[in-house]
Parts: sequence; structure tokens; C-alpha cells
Amino acid sequence: MTLRIGVIGVGMIGQDHIRRLTEVLSGGRVVAVSDVDHDRARKIASALPGCTSHVTGEELIADPNVDAVVVTTWGPTHEEFVLAAIEAGKPVFCEKPLATTREACERIMSAESGAGQRLVQVGFMRRFDASYRALKDAVDSGRIGAALMMHCAHRMPEAAPNYTSEMAITDCLIHEIDLVRWLFNDEIAAVRVLKPRGNSNTQEGVDDPLFVLIELGSGILVDVEVSANIRYGYDIRGEVVGESGTVALADNTDVVLKQGAHYSGRVPSDWRERFIRAYDIEFQEWIDNLAANKPPAGPTSWDGYAATAVADAAIEAMRTGNRKTVMLATKPDFYQD
Amino acid sequence: MTLRIGVIGVGMIGQDHIRRLTEVLSGGRVVAVSDVDHDRARKIASALPGCTSHVTGEELIADPNVDAVVVTTWGPTHEEFVLAAIEAGKPVFCEKPLATTREACERIMSAESGAGQRLVQVGFMRRFDASYRALKDAVDSGRIGAALMMHCAHRMPEAAPNYTSEMAITDCLIHEIDLVRWLFNDEIAAVRVLKPRGNSNTQEGVDDPLFVLIELGSGILVDVEVSANIRYGYDIRGEVVGESGTVALADNTDVVLKQGAHYSGRVPSDWRERFIRAYDIEFQEWIDNLAANKPPAGPTSWDGYAATAVADAAIEAMRTGNRKTVMLATKPDFYQD
Amino acid sequence: MTLRIGVIGVGMIGQDHIRRLTEVLSGGRVVAVSDVDHDRARKIASALPGCTSHVTGEELIADPNVDAVVVTTWGPTHEEFVLAAIEAGKPVFCEKPLATTREACERIMSAESGAGQRLVQVGFMRRFDASYRALKDAVDSGRIGAALMMHCAHRMPEAAPNYTSEMAITDCLIHEIDLVRWLFNDEIAAVRVLKPRGNSNTQEGVDDPLFVLIELGSGILVDVEVSANIRYGYDIRGEVVGESGTVALADNTDVVLKQGAHYSGRVPSDWRERFIRAYDIEFQEWIDNLAANKPPAGPTSWDGYAATAVADAAIEAMRTGNRKTVMLATKPDFYQD
Amino acid sequence: MTLRIGVIGVGMIGQDHIRRLTEVLSGGRVVAVSDVDHDRARKIASALPGCTSHVTGEELIADPNVDAVVVTTWGPTHEEFVLAAIEAGKPVFCEKPLATTREACERIMSAESGAGQRLVQVGFMRRFDASYRALKDAVDSGRIGAALMMHCAHRMPEAAPNYTSEMAITDCLIHEIDLVRWLFNDEIAAVRVLKPRGNSNTQEGVDDPLFVLIELGSGILVDVEVSANIRYGYDIRGEVVGESGTVALADNTDVVLKQGAHYSGRVPSDWRERFIRAYDIEFQEWIDNLAANKPPAGPTSWDGYAATAVADAAIEAMRTGNRKTVMLATKPDFYQD
Ligand SMILES: [Mg+2]
Ligand SMILES: [Mg+2]
Ligand SMILES: [Mg+2]
Ligand SMILES: [Mg+2]
Repeated sequence: MTLRIGVIGVGMIGQDHIRRLTEVLSGGRVVAVSDVDHDRARKIASALPGCTSHVTGEELIADPNVDAVVVTTWGPTHEEFVLAAIEAGKPVFCEKPLATTREACERIMSAESGAGQRLVQVGFMRRFDASYRALKDAVDSGRIGAALMMHCAHRMPEAAPNYTSEMAITDCLIHEIDLVRWLFNDEIAAVRVLKPRGNSNTQEGVDDPLFVLIELGSGILVDVEVSANIRYGYDIRGEVVGESGTVALADNTDVVLKQGAHYSGRVPSDWRERFIRAYDIEFQEWIDNLAANKPPAGPTSWDGYAATAVADAAIEAMRTGNRKTVMLATKPDFYQD
Repeated sequence: MTLRIGVIGVGMIGQDHIRRLTEVLSGGRVVAVSDVDHDRARKIASALPGCTSHVTGEELIADPNVDAVVVTTWGPTHEEFVLAAIEAGKPVFCEKPLATTREACERIMSAESGAGQRLVQVGFMRRFDASYRALKDAVDSGRIGAALMMHCAHRMPEAAPNYTSEMAITDCLIHEIDLVRWLFNDEIAAVRVLKPRGNSNTQEGVDDPLFVLIELGSGILVDVEVSANIRYGYDIRGEVVGESGTVALADNTDVVLKQGAHYSGRVPSDWRERFIRAYDIEFQEWIDNLAANKPPAGPTSWDGYAATAVADAAIEAMRTGNRKTVMLATKPDFYQD
Repeated sequence: MTLRIGVIGVGMIGQDHIRRLTEVLSGGRVVAVSDVDHDRARKIASALPGCTSHVTGEELIADPNVDAVVVTTWGPTHEEFVLAAIEAGKPVFCEKPLATTREACERIMSAESGAGQRLVQVGFMRRFDASYRALKDAVDSGRIGAALMMHCAHRMPEAAPNYTSEMAITDCLIHEIDLVRWLFNDEIAAVRVLKPRGNSNTQEGVDDPLFVLIELGSGILVDVEVSANIRYGYDIRGEVVGESGTVALADNTDVVLKQGAHYSGRVPSDWRERFIRAYDIEFQEWIDNLAANKPPAGPTSWDGYAATAVADAAIEAMRTGNRKTVMLATKPDFYQD
Repeated sequence: MTLRIGVIGVGMIGQDHIRRLTEVLSGGRVVAVSDVDHDRARKIASALPGCTSHVTGEELIADPNVDAVVVTTWGPTHEEFVLAAIEAGKPVFCEKPLATTREACERIMSAESGAGQRLVQVGFMRRFDASYRALKDAVDSGRIGAALMMHCAHRMPEAAPNYTSEMAITDCLIHEIDLVRWLFNDEIAAVRVLKPRGNSNTQEGVDDPLFVLIELGSGILVDVEVSANIRYGYDIRGEVVGESGTVALADNTDVVLKQGAHYSGRVPSDWRERFIRAYDIEFQEWIDNLAANKPPAGPTSWDGYAATAVADAAIEAMRTGNRKTVMLATKPDFYQD
């Protein structure tokens, strides 16, 4: 019972997911693709056995051979494709962000709850990373007492030339935003953004690094260093501080080298190296759930909405330098666990 | 182009490989099974869509729906199934050992080279483990100079009740035997087995731990601690000592906990936890190669032969307490890289 | 030429320093003691060969046998003893704080510069800790580029019953205040104090943990977690984030134990275990400098003043919840390096 | 109550101990020196307040101002000075080896037991190293069950030009010989020396590395890699393998640097960096015991004898390639604990 998947948007990320679905995972097959660049879609489709290309995402969604949809297009187009998939009653995996405005997210929640079944999963892959899962297990086990703080660092070696300060929020911090909501099973109440001394390697006009303070409803205080040009590697750090202990992501390395008066281990060089298995597991679990006629078990439309709302507040906080309260709609019953 | 796989032997390991081929990996499907316990084979087959059961391995091999064969039966039966697969011109993945005697391994090599194509892969999964691959990359890079020694430990928490001193060689050390041949691209010249003070947790009449010394043709000296009842975990250690540095398998853990005056990380509790990904990659690469009409790229019949020859010498060395020279046949041209 | 030392204040810390000067270090001898508890002073003196007790600190300072003075009394009394030592032209080592008010510190600076020679060293022992010195060496080497941020944690297992929120600043954070001034060779410009979710192990009415943000003149942003009741140990963490790398205090342990599915190392249980060697080196270098007729090379009266000024600002910031600018007097030429 | 110490032999090691006794430690003072190079002795004495030089070690021992003697001369001269000190009833600290032949060691034991009091301490400083002491504590605690094996490495970056294979035993392995006797409170029963592939950086005619197997009376098997030219650093490793766990010396570093895709920590560059504190503690405890009129508590003449006897056996084992049994005299009652 292979799950037949249509992929809307076959840029770099879309192609990587197609490779994953085709060559790595079990139980799914890419049967249709579409892209704003029709030639690219045709080319991709012709290289995959039994795959057709569609001119629009809507056509792809309507294709009766397509059981489930993956959306990896440009953020501003997410809303229309997700809404169309809901309309068609088809499960849809949407890369983050769910949509670029709170209002768009609310329309998606409204449509999905109207449809009466969970159809949407948002692409926050860290929830599927083995280390983050072990972190959550340790927190949930009570071994460090109640969580009080979390120290995070989100470090990238080199930002793209078009990088902006806002992207530090919408493309980077967004992962910690979702992560801490999931980790502590709580909503974010307020956010502050501080600007430390700037990195001289940074793009003109960009504030880098940033230091973000996130307050959860329970009072847990999360600090996040976002460094976009730190050169040495792609390094994602996280330590939860509890009442009687702490638990932290380990520095993992395959081997330890001793040479030249030092021992050393490897830091990942990019997000692919760090999170490749998280992406695999994210999609394998999605496929397994759908194949078993279960709803997707990953981040929901509500999670996508909350992340967007917090990111909006963070951008505002960054602009003003002030603490910004996050205003969330009441969580619909439909999204209560 | 799904590879249709038949599995001979559906005990614990066979079932685990079926799960892997069915639920985890891409590009393969189990279409036939057989087992000395016919009922078990039937039951397994009935739970897999499109899978039939055969009464004998020979029947399974002859099934025209079967493209490739996996042998996970009791060791003494490996020879007959591998020979039958070669006879049928079908690729065969055989769990270690390739065969239980050097003569049987020689008959397999003879049949395979007679067939004129590489059909056999032996299940030494450590070659596919990310950490061991990083170890080999570091050695090959020359960063530690020429390799001179290697210190290994093969530690298991608790041996099965039927464990014997010979099994320390044939089931445990066999992995280091293959590993160092691959890592250093060299044959083993001699072996010694020492018996340290015994572990009181050990089965009556069993020598545990053992301390094995392996000499490679180049003079590299490998020492291997084999501890079968060390309780604390399943811990596989390896450090290569070169002329100007060393490289070692890291102690990996997902998270570091700080609690009760200590920081701590996790040691794997069994071989599944430690090597599950190595098994996945071993089979995915095997499928990918066969699907691309390439010969299998893993351990060959020669590797299986050499491992068995060294294990024989090690058992003899253990019995006598003396250094035992390993006598190998000349490596056939067919197995030269 | 043994340095003859008088110790004013022979409580717990004074006694520990006497032990250090008498039994551990070279070149110094305790020849006089005094204490508000005269009996205690007499008792201590009688146990030390060639040591007399004085009724007041002033008498001790005036004793012609005393070459140099150590002040380890209650903070509010520091000013009078330091001023008296300056007046007498004798070097004085004063445990932190130099004095409890900025004005008192200013009076000390005025007296010392009036005396025309550096006589005062303040007891910030972290500057003498091998790990912090290696941290400073790494920062100064330029290997991580310019420093941009520092993440610190100051964790203690259990605060005393009389612990207050202010003591988190004056007794704990004070060390990080001095440390970052020294590490980055810069003054502190502003400070914020946040209150995360409270630890239920904490004393009634105390805010614990605190999360403090320190801005240096250069823009470097330092965050400090102060946890006074974290149970698991005494854990002092610090990571400097530069433009192209980071450097952090290591988790040190003598041995690594593998047992019960975990590897583990030890976290210090209290400040003595963590900093005992720093105290030794602090005093040995002080003795060595004085014996060589050199001025003390440790933290100066200016450092003591600045620390007190920043602590005042931090207490104000804690009360108001707002960012508090630190106002410092112009640094006298006398204290320029 | 300062202990007045005479140092016989003021070469590099002697001078380092004089520095230690004079500038670092408490309670001792060097009042006399002698050396085969009289000018050197005079020069050293003139630089130390209150220190005289003697033409011979015997004169120095006879000097009534000398309370205790330190012998740091060339090995073959140790016997005469130690015997003279015993004859004079003065405590003597003798750098390893106690003497260069078993017979000489026996003469020393005979003289010392004849004198009826423990006067001799041998300079095996590892017993005073904090990490080794933590290792012993962990073993003695029973937390890893009974010890069964120990894996050691003794790695040095570059041997001196006059290095010989025998020096690998007498100057390097000798430390592990003493260490394991102390750690496991047991005598060594037999020893084997294997010669792995040679390091091309090694001196002509020297076997380097060596791999030594030491059997203790209890059956504990200790393996020791001795690498004299491994370039990367001075790295002393040790892991004790017990019935249910292991305990190992940690890789210590002051700071961890993250840079250039790697995290790294420091390996000591020479024995001074690694063991400087062990030497300090070794002498401080020696002074403290003597000052308290207690016998020295470090390695005894028996320990010096046993180390020499095992080293002799190891040299023989290295020459023949065979296992060599160690023959020890019966331990005199005088040396029973
Ligand atoms: Mg994602
Ligand atoms: Mg295998
Ligand atoms: Mg202090
Ligand atoms: Mg020594």
C-alpha cells in the first residue's frame, strides 16, 4: 500500500525531499510534481519512474493518483496550497512556515477544523531529531526537577548574501520557537531581542549575532544566541536547567583525533549534516501514520500559527528593543491533544 | 524497479532484516521466505503483502520472483544455500559466518569465481557503521602517520546461557577480525589468546574475559579485550595508534545529564542500539548496488574465508596458549580489488 | 626573607587562609591575628608558632613585626582596616568586597593614590584559576576572532538559610562582574536582571534563579545564570563567543566511570573543591611579589570600586526590572596599567 | 620547625626539586647541596640563602644541619647515598630507581630494617597524582566489581637522542610497574614484551613502540603501550576493567575551543606539564610526615626493589620474546603494612 505523494515546489528543498522519499524511505512514492518553473517540474518528473508533472499545485492536488501532498514552495504561496489540499480532503505536509501571516494561519485552522480531521503537518523537523527527543525524555522523566530555564545557541557558519536581520527570526529562531513550545508543552508569552557587539563578517546592515529571550507561560526563560556567520561550523546547542540538574545536547562526533598537542572532534558543517536523519524520520513517521490511516502526529496547524505569531512578536521586539507580549487566539478544541 | 528479495531463515535476525527491508529501507521488498520451521515461515509470509513461503531454501532460490537472496539460517547451513544461489546466478547476502569451515568457504569461492561474477556479500556490518567509516577515513588520510597498533574492546553486558569460550571467537571477535582486515587493508598473520582473571559473573567453564593479540602482515599489532558479561553496557571501543597521533571511536550520547554530583552520558545497552544504523546502511547499499546492476560492494567470499581461517587459528591459540600463525590460501585474482 | 603576615578576621575564611599560608604555600608566615572575637583570635594565635594576637585590627597593623595584612572580616569593616594599612604603608590583601559602598571604595582609592604606591589587592580569586587563565589566553590569542558574547552559569547546590536575592548579586555575581572586566579588559556599561520561573527548593521570598545580562563598553553581551539551589553540584560555566569560534571552560573530572549504562565524570561539590588551587596561587603570587619588593599584581582598588558600582546597579536593576546604566568615576591615572 | 633538607645531585631534576622546596612548598628549606660537579653545587648554594655546598654526598649527609636527604644523582650512585643516609639515621628521598640492581636494593632493605625504622622513600610520583588517586579510590570502592584487566598507554612526543629500548623499560615502564603494584595492592608475577610495527621517527636500532603484558599475582592482566616518539603530546592513559564496569583517567583540558569545524582540548606536551602537581604533593606529604615525626608514607625500599626486579624481568622478556616469570624474595615483615 505505497503512499502516492505529490510534491509542490521542486527547488532545492523539494528535490531533497524527493530524493529522500524515493531513495531512502520505505512506503512512499512520488507520483506527481509541480513547480512555478514548469520546465524544472517536467525534468524532475521524467527522471522518476511513474511520475507526472502538473502545471499548477491545484492540478496536482486534484490528481486522483495523489494520496498526499508535500508543499515546499516559497512561503507566501503555502496558504493557497494547504487550503486546496484541505478542501480536497488530502493530507498535506507543509514546510515551515505554515503561512507568512497569522491571519493566513487562522484561515487554515478554520478550514481544517471545518473539514473535521487533522490533515496538516508543518515541517519542524527538530521534533524528530534523536538528540532533541532524548532531551525531551530527560525533561519529562523528572530527573532534573521542574524546568526553569533553557540556554540555546543557533550557530551557522555563513549566511547567504541576501540574509537579513528578519531572517534571523523567520528562518532560524523559528526552529527554537517551535522547539521550546513542544519541549515544555507550553505557549510563549513574551519575547525580547538584544543586539550584542556585531560580527565584522556580517552582511552590511544586518544585526548579527542576536540574543533572544523567550518567556513561556509557566515562567520558563529561554535564551537563544543566533549567530549567522560564526565560521567554525553549524552548531545547535541546548541546555535545559531544572531545579536539581541540567540536561544538554551533547557534542557528537564519530571519532576523536589526537594530534598536534590536542584532541579533537568534529562539529557539523551545515544543517544537512546535522539534521539529515531528523528529516528522514519526520517523513517516515508521516508516511507510516498516513499508511495506517492515522492522522499525522507531527506539528499541527496550531503549531504553525503559534510559531508565526511568536515570530511576528520577535520581529517587533527586534525593531523596538522592547519586550513584546505575544497575543494568541484561544486554542480551538480541535487542536487540544 | 523494486528488488524482490527472498529470505532463508526467519528467526530473530531474519525477522529483523525483514522488518528493515519492509518498513525502513527503500527499493527492496520481501517476496518469499523459508525456514526449517515451516509454520513460522508461513506465518511470517502471511503477514507480508505479496510474500509466499517455501518449504526449502532451494525452492526459494529457484522461485523466479526472487531476484536476490538473504541467508540468515544457522551457520552450518550457510554453505548449501550460498552455493545454490551462486548456481542459480542470484546475488546472495549471507550473515556471518560465510561458512563454518575453511574448506566450505573455499568451495564457495571456487563456485563464485567459476560463475564469473561477484554474487556473495557477507554480513559484517561494522564496515557500514558511520563511526568506523570515519575511523578508516582518518587512518587513510595519513593524519596520524602510518598505523602501528590498535586497541579494541568488545564488551557485552551479559552472555547467553549457552555461551562458550569458542563463541567469544566465532561470534564476537569475528567482527574485529573482519574489521581490522578492512581498516588496514591487510591480512592477519598470527594470533594469541590470553586469559585474564575471570569474571565471577561468567557461565561455568567459560573463559571470560579474553585478551586477544592479532598481528597483521605489516606488523600492526591489534589487541582486543572480549568481555562478555561486563554488565554496564554494550561498548565497542577502538583506537588506532599511528606514528604521530591516534584516532578513536568516540563515546557517543544524545544528551549529557548533570545530576547528583556527576555529568553522564549513555552507553548503548545492546548491539541493536549500537549498530542499528549500520545494518540499515549495509542493506540499503546492497539493494542500491544490485538495483543498479552493480556487484555487491561489501565483504566478499574471500573476506568470509579469511575471517573463518583466522577464527580457526584463534580457537587453536586459545586452546594451546601459544601464538598461532594463520595460513591462508593465495588470494585468487577474482578477489583482487 | 619570609613575609610576616597579619590576618584580621579569623572566621572560616580567615582560618582557611591561615592554613594555606602556614601549611601549603612558600615564603610567608602568619605572625599576628585579630578578631572581633578576642578569644577566638587568642586561640588561633596560640596554635601557631610565633604568632601573637591583637585586640584590634589597628593594633595588628601597627605591629612592627607585621609586613603585610590580610583582611577577611565582615564586609562593612573592610574600609577601616584597608585605610589603616594604607596609612601605615603596609600592603593589604582584602577579601571581596573592597568595601560595601562606592563612596568607601573612592576613599580607599584616594588614600592609596595619595600614598603614591599600590598597596591593595582585592580577593577575586578567579583571575588565578588555571581554567580562566587558559580562557583568557585563548581569547587574547585571537583564535576565535573578536569576542561578541559570553554565556556564564554560576550554580551552587544549596544556599545558606540566610540567603537573600541581594546576595545573589553581592556574593555570587560579583565574581562574574570582576571576571568579565578582567577577561575583556573593559568596563561594564549596563546591567539587567531577569527572574525566570522560581526553584521550589529556594528560601521563602528569594528570587532564584536569576538571569543577568551585562553589557560591556565594547558591546560584548554577557549573560549569567545564577542558580543558588540547583542541588547537583557547584558548577561554574563560561563560554566566550567570538566572530569565528568559541572557547569554554571544560567539564573537568579526574576519572571517567562506566557503569549502569552510563559513563560519568564528577562535578565539584562546592567552591572549595573547584577553586582551592586558585586561592593557593592567588596568595603565592601575592607573597612572591611582595617578597620581591614588587607591587601586588592582582585586582586593584579600582577593580574593587568598579565591582561594587556594578553590583549596586545590578541590585537596582533587580528591584526595578529595568536596564540600569552603570555610572563610573573617571579612572584615576594612578590605576592605569 | 622547618625541615632542613640536603640535596645530593643538582642536575636538571635536582634543581627542579630545589625550586619546588624553596618556592612552592611549605615547611622545608634546602640547607645543603652537593654534586659531582663541585662548581655547579657551589653556584646553586650561593643562590640560596643559608645554603652551603659539600664536596661529597657523604659530607652532606654528615652535616648536622641536614635533617633529611634528597638523592637525585645518576642511578648507579643511589645505593651508596641511600646506605649512608640510613647509616646516619636520616630520612632519604631517592629518585627512581632505588638502585640499579636487585642486589643493591636488597642491601638497602637489609640496612633499613637493621636500622629499625622506615627512612627511605622512592620517587614514584604517580601515586601522588590526583587522577591516579581518584582511579584507585574508584577501584577500591567496588563500584566496578573486582578488577580483571588494565589498559595503559605511556606516550611521549620525542625520545632523547641517547634513548635505547632498555630505557623504555627502566625509565618509562617503571612507572606503570610501580603504579599497578600500588593500584591493585599486588605483586607482578610475569611479563611479556611484544614489538609492534616500528615508528619511522624512532632512533636507529631502537624498538619503538613496545607493547608490554604484565600479569599480577591475582591474574589481573595489564597491557601497556610504550610509545616514545608519538609526536602529538605526552599522554598517559589508563583504564581499569572490572567485572561490571570500568574506570579510566580522563582527558583533562582547561578549555574547549571550537574552531574550524572541530572542538578541541589540550593534551599535555611533556611530563612536567602532566605531573607537576604530583611532584609537589609527593614532596609536601614527605615534608609533612617528617615534620610530624612520622615515617615517610610513600613508596618504600621494598617497592623500589620490586620495581627493579620486574624491570630486570621485562628486559629479559624483551630480549628473548618470551614470557618471563618474576622472582621476588619473600617480603620482609619490616615492609608489611
Ligand atoms: Mg523543516
Ligand atoms: Mg552482521
Ligand atoms: Mg576570593
Ligand atoms: Mg618520580
